[in-house]
Amino acid sequence: MEEKCVSTKTSAADLVTETDHFVEDVLISSLKEKFPSHRFIGEESTSAGSKCILTESPTWIIDPIDGTCNFVHRFPPVAVSIGFAVNQELEFGVIYHCTEERLYTGRRGQGAFCNGQRLQVSNVTDISKALVLTEIGTKRDPATLKLFLSNMEKLLKLQTHGLRIIGSSTLSLCHLASGAADAYYQFGLHCWDLAAATVIIREAGGIVIDTSGGPLDIMSCRVVAAGTKELAMLIARELLTIDYGRDDET
Amino acid sequence: MEEKCVSTKTSAADLVTETDHFVEDVLISSLKEKFPSHRFIGEESTSAGSKCILTESPTWIIDPIDGTCNFVHRFPPVAVSIGFAVNQELEFGVIYHCTEERLYTGRRGQGAFCNGQRLQVSNVTDISKALVLTEIGTKRDPATLKLFLSNMEKLLKLQTHGLRIIGSSTLSLCHLASGAADAYYQFGLHCWDLAAATVIIREAGGIVIDTSGGPLDIMSCRVVAAGTKELAMLIARELLTIDYGRDDET
Repeated sequence: MEEKCVSTKTSAADLVTETDHFVEDVLISSLKEKFPSHRFIGEESTSAGSKCILTESPTWIIDPIDGTCNFVHRFPPVAVSIGFAVNQELEFGVIYHCTEERLYTGRRGQGAFCNGQRLQVSNVTDISKALVLTEIGTKRDPATLKLFLSNMEKLLKLQTHGLRIIGSSTLSLCHLASGAADAYYQFGLHCWDLAAATVIIREAGGIVIDTSGGPLDIMSCRVVAAGTKELAMLIARELLTIDYGRDDET
Repeated sequence: MEEKCVSTKTSAADLVTETDHFVEDVLISSLKEKFPSHRFIGEESTSAGSKCILTESPTWIIDPIDGTCNFVHRFPPVAVSIGFAVNQELEFGVIYHCTEERLYTGRRGQGAFCNGQRLQVSNVTDISKALVLTEIGTKRDPATLKLFLSNMEKLLKLQTHGLRIIGSSTLSLCHLASGAADAYYQFGLHCWDLAAATVIIREAGGIVIDTSGGPLDIMSCRVVAAGTKELAMLIARELLTIDYGRDDET
């Protein structure tokens, strides 16, 4: 098997490969050709110093490989995520599960689908009946780990049915959209993890909010999503905040 | 979608459905017809009071649905696991990943395969390059959760590349066998989670040991597995023991 050239970004757990750069370059250059006036926010362009600011202009928000650590290890959940916003409103989202060849799509007001099949979130309101997904995030300092593990402990003490970490935020959010999981929360994800998935979940009938319980801010690096408002609010009330800054602050 | 009839066993997180019973009954009755002198250890028969003792006799060790919580939620990783032992030695194992239609097989001295393709573990020895898998286990009392989370914290503080929880011990162990993960550890799994996977991992070149660092005892409800002995021993040295008793004690 071909070895991958792996570099680290903000921490030893924050990886990037040549493939991330290649996929992002291909996507942005081909979209730019068709839509020369549009703006682009991409994970790797941002790492390379491009500003990550959502204006009123039509903007494509791209994660070329979500689950880079999985990709490096050839652990299956790996996705490409493309969201599109106009006037700071998310209009549509497309997420492709590369290893299972599943295409998740959502368009505002027109439903969400996986390989053509309509998606519908679950109606679970009770945490003890809920399968909850999360991700660890890239910060691994002792204080961050303590908060991350305290949040897991709180949900496990509430007797959540199960807690899973699959290594891909966008695919976790797709599982939520399809009703295979009931809730998701994370600190330390980015606007390119959230843009497409947010449209897909909302169009599947789900809730995507800030960890404070207030409205989602896709630049705030934090999210709670669930099939029902009750479950989202219950989880939001439990969580200790982990500060990852904002995507639109340099 | 059809609703599943779910019951709990030892805890609210220890689930069983009618399908678990049905699959186990079908497997055992059809194997018994062909091999009337053989013995059987099955997850659901054991829960129902059958003795779980590995004798010298040829014995089939069966988990009809591994990942029952996933199955209940329609979260993808779900498997059937069948191991076979003679003279207390594991001879072969078969694990079927139901939602991805992957058949993992291993036979002592004859290699391990997934859908016909030979499996080979990774050669990672350094924890900071390792993708590590684990499962939470069914005990959710505060003392058990504290130990479980302390073990996660220890590995994360050692800067393990990533840590995943997918909800199926046997499929986690199959990912290890295929080289897509580098290590696995768990307290609270059972002989029916370990029997088939142990043969498959060993035939893929991997190590399956006790959490003490000593030889595996498939009745001891605990395991460390890795692609290399160095990584397995390193993880074994870190882990705090969580006491789940033994499968062969009533």
